[in-house]
Amino acid sequence: MTKDQSDRPATPVLDRINLPSDLKDLTDRELCQLADELRAETISAVSVTGGHLGAGLGVVELTVALHAVFDAPRDKIIWDVGHQCYPHKILTGRRDRIRTLRMEQGLSGFTKRSESAYDPFGAGHSSTSISAALGFAMARELGGDPGDAVAVIGDGAMSAGMAFEALNNAGDLGKRLFVILNDNEMSIAPPTGALSRYLTRLYSEGPFQELKAVAKGAVGLLPPPLQEGARRAKEMLKGMTVGGTLFEELGFSYIGPVDGHDLDQLLPLLRTVKARATGPVLIHAVTRKGKGYAPAEQAADRGHATAKFDVATGTQSKAKSNAPSYTSVFARALTDQASRDDRIVAVTAAMPDGTGLNLFAERFPRRCFDVGIAEQHAVTFSAGLAAGGMKPFCALYSTFLQRGYDQVVHDVAIQRLPVRFAIDRAGLVGADGATHAGAYDIAFMANLPGMVVMAASDEAELAHMVATAAAHDSGPIAFRYPRGEGTGIEMPERGEPLEIGKGRVIARGARVAVLSFGTRLSEVMRAREALMARGISPTVADARFAKPLDRGLILTLAREHEALITIEEGAVGGFGSLVAQLLSDEGVFDHGLRFRQMVLPDTFIDHASPEAMYRAAGMSATDIEARVLDVLGVARIGEKLGGQRA
Amino acid sequence: MTKDQSDRPATPVLDRINLPSDLKDLTDRELCQLADELRAETISAVSVTGGHLGAGLGVVELTVALHAVFDAPRDKIIWDVGHQCYPHKILTGRRDRIRTLRMEQGLSGFTKRSESAYDPFGAGHSSTSISAALGFAMARELGGDPGDAVAVIGDGAMSAGMAFEALNNAGDLGKRLFVILNDNEMSIAPPTGALSRYLTRLYSEGPFQELKAVAKGAVGLLPPPLQEGARRAKEMLKGMTVGGTLFEELGFSYIGPVDGHDLDQLLPLLRTVKARATGPVLIHAVTRKGKGYAPAEQAADRGHATAKFDVATGTQSKAKSNAPSYTSVFARALTDQASRDDRIVAVTAAMPDGTGLNLFAERFPRRCFDVGIAEQHAVTFSAGLAAGGMKPFCALYSTFLQRGYDQVVHDVAIQRLPVRFAIDRAGLVGADGATHAGAYDIAFMANLPGMVVMAASDEAELAHMVATAAAHDSGPIAFRYPRGEGTGIEMPERGEPLEIGKGRVIARGARVAVLSFGTRLSEVMRAREALMARGISPTVADARFAKPLDRGLILTLAREHEALITIEEGAVGGFGSLVAQLLSDEGVFDHGLRFRQMVLPDTFIDHASPEAMYRAAGMSATDIEARVLDVLGVARIGEKLGGQRA
Repeated sequence: MTKDQSDRPATPVLDRINLPSDLKDLTDRELCQLADELRAETISAVSVTGGHLGAGLGVVELTVALHAVFDAPRDKIIWDVGHQCYPHKILTGRRDRIRTLRMEQGLSGFTKRSESAYDPFGAGHSSTSISAALGFAMARELGGDPGDAVAVIGDGAMSAGMAFEALNNAGDLGKRLFVILNDNEMSIAPPTGALSRYLTRLYSEGPFQELKAVAKGAVGLLPPPLQEGARRAKEMLKGMTVGGTLFEELGFSYIGPVDGHDLDQLLPLLRTVKARATGPVLIHAVTRKGKGYAPAEQAADRGHATAKFDVATGTQSKAKSNAPSYTSVFARALTDQASRDDRIVAVTAAMPDGTGLNLFAERFPRRCFDVGIAEQHAVTFSAGLAAGGMKPFCALYSTFLQRGYDQVVHDVAIQRLPVRFAIDRAGLVGADGATHAGAYDIAFMANLPGMVVMAASDEAELAHMVATAAAHDSGPIAFRYPRGEGTGIEMPERGEPLEIGKGRVIARGARVAVLSFGTRLSEVMRAREALMARGISPTVADARFAKPLDRGLILTLAREHEALITIEEGAVGGFGSLVAQLLSDEGVFDHGLRFRQMVLPDTFIDHASPEAMYRAAGMSATDIEARVLDVLGVARIGEKLGGQRA
Repeated sequence: MTKDQSDRPATPVLDRINLPSDLKDLTDRELCQLADELRAETISAVSVTGGHLGAGLGVVELTVALHAVFDAPRDKIIWDVGHQCYPHKILTGRRDRIRTLRMEQGLSGFTKRSESAYDPFGAGHSSTSISAALGFAMARELGGDPGDAVAVIGDGAMSAGMAFEALNNAGDLGKRLFVILNDNEMSIAPPTGALSRYLTRLYSEGPFQELKAVAKGAVGLLPPPLQEGARRAKEMLKGMTVGGTLFEELGFSYIGPVDGHDLDQLLPLLRTVKARATGPVLIHAVTRKGKGYAPAEQAADRGHATAKFDVATGTQSKAKSNAPSYTSVFARALTDQASRDDRIVAVTAAMPDGTGLNLFAERFPRRCFDVGIAEQHAVTFSAGLAAGGMKPFCALYSTFLQRGYDQVVHDVAIQRLPVRFAIDRAGLVGADGATHAGAYDIAFMANLPGMVVMAASDEAELAHMVATAAAHDSGPIAFRYPRGEGTGIEMPERGEPLEIGKGRVIARGARVAVLSFGTRLSEVMRAREALMARGISPTVADARFAKPLDRGLILTLAREHEALITIEEGAVGGFGSLVAQLLSDEGVFDHGLRFRQMVLPDTFIDHASPEAMYRAAGMSATDIEARVLDVLGVARIGEKLGGQRA
């Protein structure tokens, strides 16, 4: 709570709402006022916390209408991705904590089952809501939890294959289910893909049609006063190619497009479909991301994610950065490589800004492919590009690469195709929390035959790894790097290819060696300084490669030290496990080695600052220092031993 | 070559064909005869090898037409899944080896880049072909490999999300690309889903339309003699809801449906689109799986996969089995559990037969969901069912679970939802080869917080694990089991829940302990027998759980033996790695332990019998014996030490 209460907007109607059931007492006129107040409260809250703003503003009226008509938590309202759920959280008993959004111990920035019964299915990744809603609907049909299931999904999220898989299955099963297509012509970036053009065509060829229902099934669902007109409209349109057929062909009744900011349309429509629907219904609501807040509406990203800001002006108070972000270093290094090699192309899955490829695309628009929220396709498309002679860099966040895992195995690794995986947001990511943590990529990439897996320990290393990947044409290669700023190290003029499978010694010492994979290196060096003051001087090495391992370096470190500690920003099964396998295979443990692996702990770590999350994970400089002292059998004076065993 | 040459069909035209370029010299009439001969040769070959028959017979004419019109290998013909590629292999220089299909050192049962330049993109998993073809097409546009890209994809494969993602991207990019939708109304089982019904509607409402072209774009693509008629047809149809709009809405020119067995339709159509297409074209060809071979046409699965058979009668020579398959044990155990718990439901992704869930569905049709080839949706749908109060068993092959990996992490594990994963075909699977090996599931499941991971060491254990999963309601749980028959062990009346996280000692011994996870246990016991003859008596334990580990058991084994060897049918990063982490955390290595991990080697192992593959992997009884002798420092007399280090 960094702002004075007096800064808060006046919200007389909202003040009467504790839970969604309170909405039942409001008139439609009051619901309209509630929407206005909810918008103001959302803006006010995000102005002090930062976070996802535009998506929530775009669904204020939808949120009010859904809670006015449906009966949560009995009815399950499932927000796809969940970053548009702040207004929903305000209406569902969490208003008193809304100014703790995304802060340590505060509300999650996404829906979360453990946070509220009103979040029946948590999210963070996109395009899961229809599958989940169908699960609830079929559970209900079989005697499980009663109530309706409503998925609210954006047009960007609809481009993902799993949304299509769910529509296909839901249309086939034919049970009552509601999908609200929240069409704002934006995911984070403007969406690409043929589906997006199709949706645009559905409403761009004329003004909103008054609840135009074009499917046989949908007419019966219309609000009574409008039904006759719609039936006439249907007669007129009979047999013509009209809107929504794509969804109708998949077995849904299609209704729309409707104005998603007009409660006079939304309320009667939702009431009617709730009263009458017997099968799956898709309601196509057109909204505007950032709606009702000029600075967001005018921003290129429609206020998608914002720092704290001044409500009156929209000016964001961004912290000054001392070093370039890893993302921007990647983008510049790739652009530089591409300027000298016209076979380099780049692939992103709806994250041109997040991956930095917008910079690449400015320079090389034909060589940059934004395939939409479609990681499975992104990976295999990259494999096809590689088979066709190009050098594709497939840039995905670690956590989203999980979506394309089978394609990495089946289409890339088995065929040894030289796809370059640029894995951004590796490790713990901060305010986005557990759903966005990049915890598993080392483990799931580094046991694939023929895969090369690198992690950058600083931003200069990242530039070298981009060069290494560009030069490596004999098979697939991956490099990971974290969210956030680099260390401020001096950058090379240009990245130079590293020798595959070779690490480097950073500091020579005695008794204990710490072998780091990735950006924990700076914490290791901080721990080393503290240890030096105690007369302990660890050897520190940067592995650079989890695969292939630098066998010579590792066996030498093991031979020349009493203890060897590995550290990585990932779960067990990755770098440390590969080192353990090497050491056991070589019989190094036969005669004793104090060996420890520092990995992310066996828990999902809640959102906080990255530093706080790494403290929670037991991977800060202090933890490293404690682990070194522990393994050497030296207790810290006046302190309990760390003993955080991951 | 188990059959006499004299059994072979007469193939005078086919005998003149060495490579696809030879087809250019044939008249259309000769091409028709070639198709007949190619069909006979395919049947003859599969009769001696076993393998996928129905799919290949369904595309004989398509194969001939594509190679007659396009110029492989310059043009890239990409067979989705690849199991329909036997006729293609016969025409592309591999006829002399066609009777080695799926045998050790023989031809792969799928397309494979390393096997032939005519296989531009290998497969095994479905629905990748459009993504790959688009990659080739865009590479061509940017100066990479020249030539056309043609994807041939079945209607079942089209239900997968990644096919939709690829269509969406291809339609948006708008470049020349050919997709042949091979619509046979079958994947392995009859396909489910709304898309399938839609495709059926496209041609069930009347006879084949003579190359009816309904899209604006497609009319210009039609063969000249037919163009005028088509234009008239278009005028008649103007503005009407007609076939193919789903694909047109995604940016493709749609042509069809055409009879995929009629070369008089296929040849002029392909010639025309090859000459004229400028953007993406989808040709909807209707075929019949098993076409032209009565025993296949009449089989429920249309001869999908067959053992060796007698050509005249179709009678398959299946080996007699001594023990029930793991799959059938799973199915019976689950059906038994479900008969006493009506919250149990089952989910399969287009594999009702392969997973045994057809048996479950016979008994409980409403409680069994076949969601189509849609593993991402299958997992999240299961999560929704669990959130709605059901007990879902999501039954997938290990290798296909990779498709739903992000959903396992994001929708199941993070939310601790009690989804039960029945992981079939774990480990090496034999004739299907590397693409179907279940090598990674232990590693990618067992490092997820809150996940329970079991492996059955025999079929009785599997029944107990089904009971364990049914009883475990506090979070997700997975159990893995291999392809093939069990050990013949006596089955319990009914499975009983195991204590979570507890293994069992199978045989007590001294000096060395072998800790097995999964069905290598019988090989371990075989190795133990051989070792006993040498006076070495290993302790053998069945871990049952990779997560949570039986810490007490493992630490006791480590304390009481000089050496500890783990063995699992999976890649590094899984069970052995978790044991290594426990041992290092507990300081067991500090003072020495001869510790070894036997895991699948760091290579993709080619198809052969499972036994031969495990020999290649260094995981047979002989290998285990050698490893024990090696770790104890005992050389086998007259033999080189095994030393197979995985």
